[in-house]
Amino acid sequence: MSQPRNVIYAQAGGVTSVINASAAGVIEMAKRHPERFGKVYAAINGIVGVLEENLTDASQFSEDLLDRLKVQPGAAFQACRFDLDSVEENPAQYQRVLEVFKTYDIGYFFYNGGNGSMVTAQKVADYCSAHGHPVTCIGVAKTIDNDLALSHCSPGFGSAAKYIATSLLEATMDLFSMHHTSTKFFALEAMGRNVGWLTIAGGLIKTAIPEVPLLVLPAERAFDKAKFLDRVRTLIDTKGYCVCIVSEGLMDENGNYISIENIEHTHNNHYTQLGGVAHTLSNLVADTFNCKTHSAVPDYLQRSASHLVSETDWEMAYRAGKAAVQAALDGLHGVLPVIEVIDTLPLVWRYKNVKLVDVADLEKSVPDEFITEDGMDITPAAIEYLLPLIKGERTLQYRNGLPNIHPMCFDLVTKQLPPFKVFK
Amino acid sequence: MSQPRNVIYAQAGGVTSVINASAAGVIEMAKRHPERFGKVYAAINGIVGVLEENLTDASQFSEDLLDRLKVQPGAAFQACRFDLDSVEENPAQYQRVLEVFKTYDIGYFFYNGGNGSMVTAQKVADYCSAHGHPVTCIGVAKTIDNDLALSHCSPGFGSAAKYIATSLLEATMDLFSMHHTSTKFFALEAMGRNVGWLTIAGGLIKTAIPEVPLLVLPAERAFDKAKFLDRVRTLIDTKGYCVCIVSEGLMDENGNYISIENIEHTHNNHYTQLGGVAHTLSNLVADTFNCKTHSAVPDYLQRSASHLVSETDWEMAYRAGKAAVQAALDGLHGVLPVIEVIDTLPLVWRYKNVKLVDVADLEKSVPDEFITEDGMDITPAAIEYLLPLIKGERTLQYRNGLPNIHPMCFDLVTKQLPPFKVFK
Repeated sequence: MSQPRNVIYAQAGGVTSVINASAAGVIEMAKRHPERFGKVYAAINGIVGVLEENLTDASQFSEDLLDRLKVQPGAAFQACRFDLDSVEENPAQYQRVLEVFKTYDIGYFFYNGGNGSMVTAQKVADYCSAHGHPVTCIGVAKTIDNDLALSHCSPGFGSAAKYIATSLLEATMDLFSMHHTSTKFFALEAMGRNVGWLTIAGGLIKTAIPEVPLLVLPAERAFDKAKFLDRVRTLIDTKGYCVCIVSEGLMDENGNYISIENIEHTHNNHYTQLGGVAHTLSNLVADTFNCKTHSAVPDYLQRSASHLVSETDWEMAYRAGKAAVQAALDGLHGVLPVIEVIDTLPLVWRYKNVKLVDVADLEKSVPDEFITEDGMDITPAAIEYLLPLIKGERTLQYRNGLPNIHPMCFDLVTKQLPPFKVFK
Repeated sequence: MSQPRNVIYAQAGGVTSVINASAAGVIEMAKRHPERFGKVYAAINGIVGVLEENLTDASQFSEDLLDRLKVQPGAAFQACRFDLDSVEENPAQYQRVLEVFKTYDIGYFFYNGGNGSMVTAQKVADYCSAHGHPVTCIGVAKTIDNDLALSHCSPGFGSAAKYIATSLLEATMDLFSMHHTSTKFFALEAMGRNVGWLTIAGGLIKTAIPEVPLLVLPAERAFDKAKFLDRVRTLIDTKGYCVCIVSEGLMDENGNYISIENIEHTHNNHYTQLGGVAHTLSNLVADTFNCKTHSAVPDYLQRSASHLVSETDWEMAYRAGKAAVQAALDGLHGVLPVIEVIDTLPLVWRYKNVKLVDVADLEKSVPDEFITEDGMDITPAAIEYLLPLIKGERTLQYRNGLPNIHPMCFDLVTKQLPPFKVFK
């Protein structure tokens, strides 16, 4: 049996409201196996923290701190949007990582980031191994976009989906209340430049209000202005109002984003509220039908809502961290644990490992069978897929009326290496 | 002792997430006093429902239905944005109300609306009384804007404030996580055309993160572009990022709304995201400092968030309904129960009655002592005022991962009068 070696865990890319549950999963699972893992360091600010030697010793975290970590939104260890250059372009970066890994006797690198970052991380680990310092690299999945290929879904998506569906449901109650003499159209803009997963999640309000006058406009379908206006007219005529969930990345048939430039706009309110796509649609309907309209853009709120986490999603995130450590225990390298479905109704799932390189360049779009033929609604198959992912609520601790959360500051280990300049 | 007479309760104007708690308060309290109150009708769609004789018998509501009502966001009985004309202009409207009130032996009219609507309601009641059919009219307060004069605060505000502060806190965690290599500025747009109450509520995140790099821009202060940019620069330079809460109605010193027209805009992202004021500020900062920025506009989400209700606010709304009925029991007419503070730390409050006409044309702005001299932060006095109003959480029932809410449909009483055309 080989000596235990140390671990680095780091976070990168857009955050989710449950990413730190994955961190807790990694830390707790690694601590349970002292025969294989020594100290568990967390790098501050992803791979940048590795380069800058900004590390905290997470093996020293108290139970209490781990419990706080489990409900913390955002990236507790800070997440970078930064990828290493290629080894040919910038060998110094790779040498530096090797130096840091050697100094701290790092044998395991768990990267909780986007596909691209994780593949880069693997290259780093391979570089280290090739230079006499073997390092195991395992990915930890996370993205609210749900575009991770080969996985049933992505940790982080279920909570964002729950936020979107809940928000749209509540706004629908508002519109239902007041449409007779006030607002007749409301559009909610969901994140997703290229994929409409969060948008179709808005369609889940059909489970609460089967007859809801709803239009779902995912990024996967080109926006057809005439068809859209026709549907809005019909819904307002028959139901009195219309609510709409739309992908921020909605495009027309020529591949142009639907924004203010694309649609002639003569809105004459005293307060010019322009788009984003939700605002654009809202103004289009206001101008066309001369009625009051509103729109909302939750933006970061949908990926940070610790107060509205899906229990299922949280569990997936927590177990993503544990599965990554298990993969290392199993002697794997360059893999990503992804979610495999064992049974449906109720959903039973587990993690299985796929190669990081096999998911790197894939983007999972919403499949055709989840979108109705007219491109403006979701199918029963979509509901069957989505519903289990938003299931369950978690109790959040409040303090003075607010979620008991605040940025975490960690003691850094004393640096042993000369400084390294990451940014020119 | 006089014979018991019947009651009409109705809702009007912008909704809150707790307005139906007031409805439940009226219904329950009136049922407790059969010696004074007969049937309790709820009009569907405010005064329009009275004119159209769309009434439901709320005295028949089951316990279960009342419990559902207490957590329902939006106006369960639908709320109109419609005021009667003056009696000179349109006597037919008044005659119709009198006819309806006579037909149903209405002796009490509880109007859960804006100040203006409630004063109109009183005029109607006075008209009825003058025409041989005495009617008591009592207002029930509600507004997320908190601009109701003579009241410590308005039912509905505390929950919207909790939503805004929670959302801004969570988004701040996101920015804190990622600002090193990503977004450096985030603006959240709060409702409030003329008053900045919800905006200053965003300042409450200072209680969770004392050192937060935050700018608070309430509608009460003219926007000074140079001063704003200077503060943003300082905060980004010293803290690495900046979050901002801004009133939708923010104006410059000339009284022009801050929107895209007012600020030269050369944003060069491939995706043009324009304002609302939050988007405008976001673009301004992006252009000036060449950094990534984001913004969010929760719009109706902030006034419909049944999943994030303040217990204190809920209690105020529930007791607003009861206090209105108590005022009628006390023989009052043309009054509005408003919140009076008996003690602070902790807040102890009760309802007292003021004349509807005394609050009708007043709008309570955020006082000077709640805003710092530079106009971009809140004072300890503001925190002391705001904090008790967002205090406490309520447990919401979920079903299939979503709040267990949906539009309520009520059996209407059989009409006894010929139809009346409200809208031309």
